[in-house]
Amino acid sequence: MLDLVLSSLDQGVLTLTLNRPDRLNAWTEAMGRRYFDQLAEAEENPEVRVIVVTGAGRGFCAGADFQTLNAIQDGSYESEPDKRPHSFPTTVGKPVIAAVNGACAGLGMVHALYCDLIFTAAEAKWTTAFARRGLIAEYGLSWVLPRLIGQGRAMDLLLSGRTFTGDEAFALGLAARSVPGESLMEETLAYARELAVHSSPSSMAVMKRQIWGDWNTTLESAESAASRLMLESFARPDFAEGVASFLERRPPQFPPL
Amino acid sequence: MLDLVLSSLDQGVLTLTLNRPDRLNAWTEAMGRRYFDQLAEAEENPEVRVIVVTGAGRGFCAGADFQTLNAIQDGSYESEPDKRPHSFPTTVGKPVIAAVNGACAGLGMVHALYCDLIFTAAEAKWTTAFARRGLIAEYGLSWVLPRLIGQGRAMDLLLSGRTFTGDEAFALGLAARSVPGESLMEETLAYARELAVHSSPSSMAVMKRQIWGDWNTTLESAESAASRLMLESFARPDFAEGVASFLERRPPQFPPL
Amino acid sequence: MLDLVLSSLDQGVLTLTLNRPDRLNAWTEAMGRRYFDQLAEAEENPEVRVIVVTGAGRGFCAGADFQTLNAIQDGSYESEPDKRPHSFPTTVGKPVIAAVNGACAGLGMVHALYCDLIFTAAEAKWTTAFARRGLIAEYGLSWVLPRLIGQGRAMDLLLSGRTFTGDEAFALGLAARSVPGESLMEETLAYARELAVHSSPSSMAVMKRQIWGDWNTTLESAESAASRLMLESFARPDFAEGVASFLERRPPQFPPL
Repeated sequence: MLDLVLSSLDQGVLTLTLNRPDRLNAWTEAMGRRYFDQLAEAEENPEVRVIVVTGAGRGFCAGADFQTLNAIQDGSYESEPDKRPHSFPTTVGKPVIAAVNGACAGLGMVHALYCDLIFTAAEAKWTTAFARRGLIAEYGLSWVLPRLIGQGRAMDLLLSGRTFTGDEAFALGLAARSVPGESLMEETLAYARELAVHSSPSSMAVMKRQIWGDWNTTLESAESAASRLMLESFARPDFAEGVASFLERRPPQFPPL
Repeated sequence: MLDLVLSSLDQGVLTLTLNRPDRLNAWTEAMGRRYFDQLAEAEENPEVRVIVVTGAGRGFCAGADFQTLNAIQDGSYESEPDKRPHSFPTTVGKPVIAAVNGACAGLGMVHALYCDLIFTAAEAKWTTAFARRGLIAEYGLSWVLPRLIGQGRAMDLLLSGRTFTGDEAFALGLAARSVPGESLMEETLAYARELAVHSSPSSMAVMKRQIWGDWNTTLESAESAASRLMLESFARPDFAEGVASFLERRPPQFPPL
Repeated sequence: MLDLVLSSLDQGVLTLTLNRPDRLNAWTEAMGRRYFDQLAEAEENPEVRVIVVTGAGRGFCAGADFQTLNAIQDGSYESEPDKRPHSFPTTVGKPVIAAVNGACAGLGMVHALYCDLIFTAAEAKWTTAFARRGLIAEYGLSWVLPRLIGQGRAMDLLLSGRTFTGDEAFALGLAARSVPGESLMEETLAYARELAVHSSPSSMAVMKRQIWGDWNTTLESAESAASRLMLESFARPDFAEGVASFLERRPPQFPPL
């Protein structure tokens, strides 16, 4: 039996590969559970500083598996769902970067957006798809998409369910980078290794929580919370090493999370 | 007497045309009431799937009518205002698309932004105008504009009241498309018809509510609400038809709202 | 002793220049206190309509002064901090425009973002820097940055602490304008003078409060508040002058705040 999510660790970067290539990595309960389990393990593993998620074969993730959708329609669907919400990756204390190598649709797009940032192949085909299947903006997509690209652009993509390329995803502000497919993994891994070496793991863990959380607070509260978090950071070895390595003009040696 | 808002229905798309062309369709209580009445009727009419709003003649809407402003200044203004807020179009359960054919200023710009998305003529002249008249960011404009284009760009447009073109509106993320004026209606109607055919009316109604509403909720609440809405969507014929038409590679036949 | 913040007033525009050029204007308690004092004075001064903030020499502000950081690390830091939060400039009732002439890093970048809008030299070097020093998203940066440029782009800049140019700051939506360094002050001052002449001081004061505040309200509340603020604006001489000058096609003569 194929492992539903492949993993490989190199220089602090864990690459997780959704691995149902004959189905464009369409989402199943089992694959999702395996992905989340590996994220949870990665959070505990001191060797892992940054996580990259991509898809095996031609697609990233083509959405919910149609056999699952059919089973829902005929009432035969029985899998006990994972208790973790689809937004689980946003709560993992290490950066998760999507490397969208191809088709990224529906629930697959939701999962690309629950990564902290996105690198996409220029020619990858993206679509929200939901409106064209009689579905709604699933799993918080109507919360996260407008915060990534603004409300008007989110309306366009959600109401129409139209297909757009990785290049347009970049132009819209959805992806941080759009690169030719053949150099996608090389560029994503180079960026991820840069984070693994130069960015403090504890800084990244705190920042990730701040950014996802500060949508629901006032500027005053965010500023107060930041003061408290800053004081905590002063006491960590990361701060001493960050300042020392900067003054000594050498790469930092940050401790693991 | 001229009808203040013209309407025509074709292939599921209702076009409403603000019709005071000799005044660049400047907003009056009476015109606003007629516009909102037609939106309310359109929501009830099963023939209407998508609504397009544009202006007669050279302008879209040049702002509040100056006779109204003068009447406010000299105390002679007596019209009983419509009880519906200016953001009423955001509560209509069908997509409303602005086709901004020309001058779009002040209150006219507010109404373009209360459409769900915007197509603009490349050469249309836009301006918030308010700061140059001693006024404020009216009717929620300071809420919606930063959510469309980000805070810094919103500050620029609001503080300066400067004039900008449709092309810049697109570059700023305010408009979803900017096209030469002579093809504006053709392009807008083609997009609207695409929604009318390929997007489920009930999907669009739910999504519109989600997107406008999810600015005021947490990711967790948005995700929970989406789960409930998704379960409701599973029970609708739109879902069965959306999946069937996709698998059969044919256009869907979605029921009206 | 050098004045830590230089000031000059011309045609309603007050230019404040952070003035520790041998340290790229790195932030100290004393310099910050002087900057905020001058902002507070500017708010009271009827001659001042718009404020421009820039840096002396090659930089804008290179971040927190390293002697301060060292003193924090060895426990010798004793200055009693200013009671005003770093976001104080957002509460000043006059527009504050950053003219980012060069290096803009860490706390310096926080202060650029607490200006209402930003003009940047195309070649200026920007960086959040914090993750590379073992620090967190300080002083509300995780609140304001995603609201300026969207969440994904904010993640990229915060997690990586990478350096980017003024041109990229513009492309990301962080800066309202990016211009060659040699014309930065000329362009910024031209824009500022335009505000000083054509935008009502009371309009700008209200709008600034609306825009910073409306992130934490619903559309309904924002629209209600705007109705109240609009009625107040009808009673001010700015409204009469704004309408009269428009109809008479002449520059307005707005009263000071």
